[in-house]
Amino acid sequence: MILRHGAGGWDGVPETRYKDEPGTWEGVSRRVLTEGLPCRFEARCFELAPGGFTSFERHRHVHFVLVLAGRGKVRLGDEWHPVGPMDVVLVGPDQPHRFLNDGLETMRILCVVDRDRDRDRPVLIDPDSAPGASNE
Amino acid sequence: MILRHGAGGWDGVPETRYKDEPGTWEGVSRRVLTEGLPCRFEARCFELAPGGFTSFERHRHVHFVLVLAGRGKVRLGDEWHPVGPMDVVLVGPDQPHRFLNDGLETMRILCVVDRDRDRDRPVLIDPDSAPGASNE
Repeated sequence: MILRHGAGGWDGVPETRYKDEPGTWEGVSRRVLTEGLPCRFEARCFELAPGGFTSFERHRHVHFVLVLAGRGKVRLGDEWHPVGPMDVVLVGPDQPHRFLNDGLETMRILCVVDRDRDRDRPVLIDPDSAPGASNE
Repeated sequence: MILRHGAGGWDGVPETRYKDEPGTWEGVSRRVLTEGLPCRFEARCFELAPGGFTSFERHRHVHFVLVLAGRGKVRLGDEWHPVGPMDVVLVGPDQPHRFLNDGLETMRILCVVDRDRDRDRPVLIDPDSAPGASNE
């Protein structure tokens, strides 16, 4: 099956809500690209509008992230790293992370995760706290 | 961890042999982008030189493929489909498939698969046979 990409995203792939918890993220859309595919992973595309950012969070499962378009920054623990097209970010187990689009264009990232992560919900972290500390 | 992308690929990511079986494929390089990541999937980048093509094969495990650069065609069963940047190809279980770069630039595709597929080796297919028939 081909999912063609055009100006509005991928044919037949709905945009879904990125997260609940308003205020902890901004300007992020989410599209699941592996719906119905019998496999042990999920591939999602997140688009960050200029100024947008994802939750600062940690969890046991890892992320494989590939920057598809735009430029921005990723926070890993207490360090920020600039990233651009084709850069890969490997987020390790329990590593606090956040993506930020500090550019002028949409930032598009592909994020692949293990499908089975029901017992491993993300834990939000206070961005001003020491890395690894949670706000629970 | 960040794997930065430059002219020669990703920092610290070696190019590996795509396949054995010479003659069944041509002009394809392979890079594994999830080496050491504790997860149930593998993300690989394949680059097809102009005129290059992957094996025509089938297997139980599925592929999530995202075209990152260049243009080409994918054969799914008995049908060829043109594909370009950001198009997604979902290859289903036992679906015969081959990628071909019939353009003038390098074609780069990301292919994600389940990590555990040791008991599910690809079966080469005679490209001139009916789809689904193998050459075993």
